[in-house]
Amino acid sequence: MSAAQDFRLRARAGLYDGHSTGHAKGFVQGNVVMLPSKLADDFLLYCQRNPKPCPLLVRGEIGDYRLSTLGEDLDVRSDIPRYRVFQDGQLIGEPTDIRDIWRDDLVVFVLGCSFSFEEALLADGLDVRHISLGRNCPMYRTSLPTASAGRFGAKLVVTMRPFRPQDAIRAIQITSRYPQVHGAPIHFGDPAAIGIGDIARPDFGDAVPLEAGEVPVFWACGVTSQAAIETARPEFCITHAPGCMLVTDWLNTRLAVV
Amino acid sequence: MSAAQDFRLRARAGLYDGHSTGHAKGFVQGNVVMLPSKLADDFLLYCQRNPKPCPLLVRGEIGDYRLSTLGEDLDVRSDIPRYRVFQDGQLIGEPTDIRDIWRDDLVVFVLGCSFSFEEALLADGLDVRHISLGRNCPMYRTSLPTASAGRFGAKLVVTMRPFRPQDAIRAIQITSRYPQVHGAPIHFGDPAAIGIGDIARPDFGDAVPLEAGEVPVFWACGVTSQAAIETARPEFCITHAPGCMLVTDWLNTRLAVV
Repeated sequence: MSAAQDFRLRARAGLYDGHSTGHAKGFVQGNVVMLPSKLADDFLLYCQRNPKPCPLLVRGEIGDYRLSTLGEDLDVRSDIPRYRVFQDGQLIGEPTDIRDIWRDDLVVFVLGCSFSFEEALLADGLDVRHISLGRNCPMYRTSLPTASAGRFGAKLVVTMRPFRPQDAIRAIQITSRYPQVHGAPIHFGDPAAIGIGDIARPDFGDAVPLEAGEVPVFWACGVTSQAAIETARPEFCITHAPGCMLVTDWLNTRLAVV
Repeated sequence: MSAAQDFRLRARAGLYDGHSTGHAKGFVQGNVVMLPSKLADDFLLYCQRNPKPCPLLVRGEIGDYRLSTLGEDLDVRSDIPRYRVFQDGQLIGEPTDIRDIWRDDLVVFVLGCSFSFEEALLADGLDVRHISLGRNCPMYRTSLPTASAGRFGAKLVVTMRPFRPQDAIRAIQITSRYPQVHGAPIHFGDPAAIGIGDIARPDFGDAVPLEAGEVPVFWACGVTSQAAIETARPEFCITHAPGCMLVTDWLNTRLAVV
């Protein structure tokens, strides 16, 4: 059994309800959004219009919770360590299993996640600061608009990783190979240029220090999709809990376009 | 007849002795170094050890001035608009033809030139500042060492082009496709980090202004090879005159690795 399948089965059995970071190395992990089918077309269009923050790996059929292209014997209702359930835009619970509240009108979206390109950065010998410090990645709301679709709309949310310029150049090369997991950065240097007031105070995740000679490098972030869902206020919605991703059978290296 | 061959024949006939910039668009232009054969092995090794500043396209056989792989009916002794001749490291002349001083022990080296990737940047809609201002590219001596070989050694010389960060990211992606013409930048941002004292005073070429929100982006430059030759002080050496390159039949787009 692969490490990916093992991870899913342990989550399914209630034996693990924590973060997926660092687990099942080499396998693609995804952000998950489940929406009633009447909102699915607009959300699909939102992802299509904003591929850098919302790189869509899979959109399931209505009512499909198995997503067989993503993994063997996968059940998205039980195989994620922890979920978030929203009613009319309000968080109403963080269960570890959603089989009892699953609805046959739900459509599952799986979006790429920066864990995949971080693995490639680490494999190249680069220091990914929040990982080496054992912290969550710093994330910031920006002033950059995204393209709306129906009720979905938000300002872009970004992640930040500090690098010396020569390492930033290498990180740009590496992440450019991974357009399905946010691809190249959208900005580096002056945080104020994209509406970030204080680099030391991220809106989500943990702050990380910038060393002398380093510049902050900013990538589009999948949390943008959660901000777009906040705006849309769907009557019902289920997502993965932050950091508790869906582990798939896909290999990170297979996402590289060249 | 191609624009490349036409350019070479006009130079050969003495009808043109100016810069090659902007001529024979689409064709690869090269830096040219001709050295006595007893220095050729060391210079080849210098290029091999420093591929970013000295990306070698062709090393001819001893005494070969036709370099037939580079172009139809090419004669490197006459087809460059203007040459520089050095004796014991001293510039002794800038002729437009060297057939009368050619020596059968000379070995010709042709190195890639940033004109090729600048064409790709322009084709992508980016503003290459010195081109839009009609100036020569600003070049700077840095404090970065290169790897020596025999008598050849120098500090790295770089070119600089200013870009907004999102355009710099795009320029990094584009130039990464062209390793034979210097490839990706080696630095961006703080000039002092690579030993450049005053960005407004380049060591070669012309200064260009940085607009608000722009950062300087630095690429390795072929002038590094000239600095290495200055150090070596060969008893005899011929190069192209600055800006007066060898126009080849190769297509710029064919240099792209992906």
